[in-house]
Amino acid sequence: MEDLDYIHFMQTKNIAIVGSGLVGSLLAIYLRARGHQVTVFDRRPDIRTVEFSGRSINLAMSVRGWNALDKVGIGDSIRELAIPMHKRTIHLVDQEPYNQPYGKEGEAIYSIPRGILNRKMIDLAEERGAIFKFNEKVWDINLPEAKIFTGETEKGEWQEYQYDLIFGCDGAFSRVRHKMQRRSRFDYSQHFLDTGYKELKIPANADGTHKIDKNSLHIWPRGEFMLIALPNLDGTFTCTLFMPHEGENSFENLKTDEEILAFWNTNFPSTKELMPTLLEDFNRNPTSALVTIKCYPWTYWNKVALIGDSAHAIVPFYGQGMNAGFEDIAVLDDIIERFNNEDWQTIFETFQESRKPNADAIAELSYRNFMEMSSKTADPNFILRKKIEKKITDKYPNKWVPLYSRVTFSHRPYAEALKMGEEQAAIMDEVLTMDNIEELWNSPEVEDFILTSLEKKELIPQKS
Amino acid sequence: MEDLDYIHFMQTKNIAIVGSGLVGSLLAIYLRARGHQVTVFDRRPDIRTVEFSGRSINLAMSVRGWNALDKVGIGDSIRELAIPMHKRTIHLVDQEPYNQPYGKEGEAIYSIPRGILNRKMIDLAEERGAIFKFNEKVWDINLPEAKIFTGETEKGEWQEYQYDLIFGCDGAFSRVRHKMQRRSRFDYSQHFLDTGYKELKIPANADGTHKIDKNSLHIWPRGEFMLIALPNLDGTFTCTLFMPHEGENSFENLKTDEEILAFWNTNFPSTKELMPTLLEDFNRNPTSALVTIKCYPWTYWNKVALIGDSAHAIVPFYGQGMNAGFEDIAVLDDIIERFNNEDWQTIFETFQESRKPNADAIAELSYRNFMEMSSKTADPNFILRKKIEKKITDKYPNKWVPLYSRVTFSHRPYAEALKMGEEQAAIMDEVLTMDNIEELWNSPEVEDFILTSLEKKELIPQKS
Repeated sequence: MEDLDYIHFMQTKNIAIVGSGLVGSLLAIYLRARGHQVTVFDRRPDIRTVEFSGRSINLAMSVRGWNALDKVGIGDSIRELAIPMHKRTIHLVDQEPYNQPYGKEGEAIYSIPRGILNRKMIDLAEERGAIFKFNEKVWDINLPEAKIFTGETEKGEWQEYQYDLIFGCDGAFSRVRHKMQRRSRFDYSQHFLDTGYKELKIPANADGTHKIDKNSLHIWPRGEFMLIALPNLDGTFTCTLFMPHEGENSFENLKTDEEILAFWNTNFPSTKELMPTLLEDFNRNPTSALVTIKCYPWTYWNKVALIGDSAHAIVPFYGQGMNAGFEDIAVLDDIIERFNNEDWQTIFETFQESRKPNADAIAELSYRNFMEMSSKTADPNFILRKKIEKKITDKYPNKWVPLYSRVTFSHRPYAEALKMGEEQAAIMDEVLTMDNIEELWNSPEVEDFILTSLEKKELIPQKS
Repeated sequence: MEDLDYIHFMQTKNIAIVGSGLVGSLLAIYLRARGHQVTVFDRRPDIRTVEFSGRSINLAMSVRGWNALDKVGIGDSIRELAIPMHKRTIHLVDQEPYNQPYGKEGEAIYSIPRGILNRKMIDLAEERGAIFKFNEKVWDINLPEAKIFTGETEKGEWQEYQYDLIFGCDGAFSRVRHKMQRRSRFDYSQHFLDTGYKELKIPANADGTHKIDKNSLHIWPRGEFMLIALPNLDGTFTCTLFMPHEGENSFENLKTDEEILAFWNTNFPSTKELMPTLLEDFNRNPTSALVTIKCYPWTYWNKVALIGDSAHAIVPFYGQGMNAGFEDIAVLDDIIERFNNEDWQTIFETFQESRKPNADAIAELSYRNFMEMSSKTADPNFILRKKIEKKITDKYPNKWVPLYSRVTFSHRPYAEALKMGEEQAAIMDEVLTMDNIEELWNSPEVEDFILTSLEKKELIPQKS
């Protein structure tokens, strides 16, 4: 018994998490499950008591996210909030919409509004004993001593807290990372896209049903810009307009109601009836920026670690920001277990070394996917490519896993998905240069060529 | 007269410069010459009243730096402090040192100690009416209102100053940039090298003369690490050891006197007699980090601009950090003149757009030059390459300007030097694969091949 008490004493840490968002809440649940005391700080009010902001993009939960939720036993309570989307529905101007399935029969990504999910996760964390301190602004961190300083204002009186460990889950513009960034030899980059975004909405029908197919992620691709819509349980859709900040078709050039309506009539005429509050939403909701943030190291001694967006903010075009953050936590938890929930120096080092290449890979994939969503989904060559890929995948599911499935319906590392995806893309590039490919795409020659190429590249069969 | 008064009133601005280093001092001199009121803030004490820090690398002033000094009429007073270095002297283990000239007859780079230069530049700026406020710490900037907040401590009482314009010349870890970085859509990156550096020294002979050739930049290249020495007017040399922070040969592994001496005996035996205070210097002087910093935009409205390291800190391997900062100022001054010393919005936009590609180019060239200095200077292939280049340059000085000369002995844009240098390197790569090139390097065939390649690539003759 004395030994057991001793071990318990050694293992239980007093832990602060900065940020009560999705990653902060899930980490709180995991750390409680490992027996630690957990306090979560947030500078904002309790999201359960306030209206949502009008600047969020709906989340698309996929296998990595679900794995992380199921591992700690909360997947089922979250599934109740989600709507499966099995396919993309592509809306071109003057053409009937058509569908592109995301994966195999039964595979789907799941639409969840960020605010609703966040409220639920905080409930679940509190039920498990995590303490939440809202409206408490963290202004400074003492990294080597794991101290947090909070107060009403940066210049005013501060309160000091001492912990064993601090986790920075405070998002893309993390205060915790900001403190680490002032140290020597901390690599950091923030790169903004020329494209920004604005939240819009499609309301429900009078009877509470959805105005368009609710089991789809709808895309209106228009080249440099696009509109998307993701379903909510209440019959509405959350829409997002992605568009350059400046230039011919840009937020800068949509200032007056007349400009907005003229733009909409030209580019999204079929949505006009779906969006009766377009002008109101457009004028009220802010135009937000899209950023990729990379940094390293993610940890400080055995004291402080960054998790989720604070370590690796990515653009939203693969729907993997939350999934990557949740997977961080599941990976960290495996490592915590491996090192007996106590050697935090080794836990942190192992975590950042194993996870950093995968964070870089999903950043790259997300950046590239904007082109796929906004331009290529409407391109005949891309559609032919997808058709050939689908045929090979259906026939040889262990030999050809599409890149999208490697990212979305797999828990294999992102870095592997990026590498394999590039090898597959090189094969498909060659296939599409074959004579008369539009006619021959379904021929045995094309199939042979692909299979032989796979063998030459020694692409190992990979299971999702 | 009324008109003239009006113009004078419009043109004269009340300007704050943050940072009294080399770039801040030179900018003060330039802005005084344009008739502006100038106040320079520095958080540190007056460098004229304190000892130098023991963490500096001697400067190598080259054409870009001299041009900027001469344009404002202070070149001659600085030349008195400088020693010309016409060549590299390469010191290999167990071999006689040999020389590599930097350019043509009469071309040289000039060694100046940073501290001595900085003291002189502050004197010159004060003589011209710039006000210096030392020991005044800038904690915050209001960008749109061009306000500066200073005080003893970040949490204490602050003093507020209002200016028309603010220039951030506060170096790689700029407070002014830091404030701009918190805005949306500000691209930023800081990337540290695994290699660090430490200042060491070679004292003068008893009679005040130099112990080794004073008109050389001395290099002891050893692959992953190297020692360099630059002459000072007082007979001493300022030395810098560049070496990885961690690994087999690293600062981490040189902790005890025994480790340092054993390392020195193996790698730099010929310097032992030159450096009697090696152990003392090694233990006293800090090990410093090397960083490349990029950001954009560099300016905020018509109010704030970053100049020098605060906008583009680079690694020191091309000796261009100060030269690039001084050239910033000369370029800015041309633009100020073009827009009549008054349209600061246009001046700032023109400046950042024209200068950013050149800052990126010298960052890339400097990063690559570490390999050249530490490894290639000792490589027979590299020596052969330089020999062929020298022959072609001597014979066709307008057709083949070596990359080093384009950077060091020219005022053409850095971006052009990078591009031309890459084209020339591609030609030399081909030349070095020619059969029996060691014997034939001086043959008409090789010469013909190079001239034909230059014509094919349409490399325009370029004058330094």
